[in-house]
Amino acid sequence: MHDAAFLTTATRHGGGLMKAAAAYPDAPRPWLDLSTGINPEPWRGPRAPEEALNRLPDPGALGALEAVAAAAFGATPDRTAATAGAEAAIRLLPLLLGVRSVEIVGPTYGAHAESWRAAGVATRLIAADQAAVSPAGVLVIVNPNNPDGRLTRRADLIAMARARSAEGRWLVVDESFIECTPEESVSDVVEPGLIVLRSFGKFYGLAGVRLGFTLAAPELVVRLRALLGDWPVGADALAMGRGAYADRAWRGRTATALIARAHGLDSLLARAGFEVLGGTSLFRMTRTPHATRWFQHLCRAGILTRPFDHSPDALRFGVPAERDLPRLARALEAFS
Amino acid sequence: MHDAAFLTTATRHGGGLMKAAAAYPDAPRPWLDLSTGINPEPWRGPRAPEEALNRLPDPGALGALEAVAAAAFGATPDRTAATAGAEAAIRLLPLLLGVRSVEIVGPTYGAHAESWRAAGVATRLIAADQAAVSPAGVLVIVNPNNPDGRLTRRADLIAMARARSAEGRWLVVDESFIECTPEESVSDVVEPGLIVLRSFGKFYGLAGVRLGFTLAAPELVVRLRALLGDWPVGADALAMGRGAYADRAWRGRTATALIARAHGLDSLLARAGFEVLGGTSLFRMTRTPHATRWFQHLCRAGILTRPFDHSPDALRFGVPAERDLPRLARALEAFS
Repeated sequence: MHDAAFLTTATRHGGGLMKAAAAYPDAPRPWLDLSTGINPEPWRGPRAPEEALNRLPDPGALGALEAVAAAAFGATPDRTAATAGAEAAIRLLPLLLGVRSVEIVGPTYGAHAESWRAAGVATRLIAADQAAVSPAGVLVIVNPNNPDGRLTRRADLIAMARARSAEGRWLVVDESFIECTPEESVSDVVEPGLIVLRSFGKFYGLAGVRLGFTLAAPELVVRLRALLGDWPVGADALAMGRGAYADRAWRGRTATALIARAHGLDSLLARAGFEVLGGTSLFRMTRTPHATRWFQHLCRAGILTRPFDHSPDALRFGVPAERDLPRLARALEAFS
Repeated sequence: MHDAAFLTTATRHGGGLMKAAAAYPDAPRPWLDLSTGINPEPWRGPRAPEEALNRLPDPGALGALEAVAAAAFGATPDRTAATAGAEAAIRLLPLLLGVRSVEIVGPTYGAHAESWRAAGVATRLIAADQAAVSPAGVLVIVNPNNPDGRLTRRADLIAMARARSAEGRWLVVDESFIECTPEESVSDVVEPGLIVLRSFGKFYGLAGVRLGFTLAAPELVVRLRALLGDWPVGADALAMGRGAYADRAWRGRTATALIARAHGLDSLLARAGFEVLGGTSLFRMTRTPHATRWFQHLCRAGILTRPFDHSPDALRFGVPAERDLPRLARALEAFS
């Protein structure tokens, strides 16, 4: 695959290091993956023991995980369904809600529009200032937004959830990156039309485990669980999710550390001439007239970032671990 | 929970040791779980390394897993979609196929009827001898059947798949236990209306990993993948599935060993007065007029078996590991 073809591939999703390595066979290894917003310093508690792999996950263990996670979100277990990643819920929502139209505040994470379109629902991207008056059966807001970090205030979301619920309409808030700004979360808010999605893998740095949660009215949670079956997540997700969501100390420490690391990255990027537009403390969105050249230059240095087909001058950087900043700094300095 | 309430719980699914332990707090630990058909001697290759948990699964790794599994099934990767267990596919099929009626050869694994009914599809259990003339949009056959081991011949399945495909109808063959009788598998058969489900966790003894496959026409595989998203299975499933399906030697050795172990169990059961009706070499179905008393007696000995609400004189035993036979033998002898 040559440069241009790989650029197109990379605008779909982050990740995909195997294709990057194939497109840039001479790049130094291991690759530094800054194409996603996954914490490179994961929660390091125990995985599931070998015996747990040998059995079907116990329904009791799923209940225990959902209880611990619900407590961390300020919600109750009857409103909290575990899924194999937030992505799994994004794909199933169109089948559960049975509406004719959806509006998505965008540009944003592409899987939302993809899954509604695949279900044959009329799908429109709207600007943030149109959200409060959206007439669609479902309104989707990613908060904070990916890729630009745009934040919708909790008070505004509550007002929208209330108004939409009263009209029999839904509000889906994707809080995949909310741990960076927990005070804006609406995971604890109870409104019949409000659905909140949470991701485990990003903040906890364990995306390979596949775990997320859907918070919604108990009747909807029951219907979602019926679609997922009795064993929606695997043994590592049950063990690590339960451990991590109970670990308040790690959560607090990590939120602070991420902010410091994001500042460190911003300084490097500013020095290299990028305009840092915003983001969260897990990823930073930048603007540069040379986004494609930068993307390709960094690939040649074994560093994968995230370009966007809807904004050819945009480049997103995952916030690296402290130990990887020098490598990024060297690669940024070598650009010509 | 007293005996009777737990009996009702246990007729839904195998597994659920936590509830069993709560209902029988004085039973010796650890519990011996014979309530499922999961191989207690799992494939023991490497799990995903820690770094793999920290990343989103690479789409390339998913493709590699599907290629190795497809080869083991005699299928091609474009007909093979990985899911988080066969169960995940069972739940989604009603949404994918859009039919009005389904017939299921039963009695059989309950999740099939449950998921079609949840989707509002007219659902009927039929006898095996009615299968060939089923007029329903979808016909489901579990082969070999769970819980009784009834086998439908490959030639008969191929004839049904061909006839139904010609009429625009579907045939779903759930081969979750086919590794015990691989010569009857239709995983390699290409007919537009044929869908085959495979389970990883049972034969390989790794149910906690959550991995299964749906084999179907490429167009349907594309639509299923869209419902699952880009990361349908976790890091352990990618690593262990790829290793295990490539391990032909283990597969052959294990099929032989399971047969010997099933014979060993049959002898014990016959000596204790059970009529062994059949099964597969992962589980044995028995009849006894005292099924409820046996179930409860074995629970008190810390051994969980599987009762059925549709056959109050039936009790199913998972085939235990060699090392656990003496414990089962002692418990069987202590019945009065």
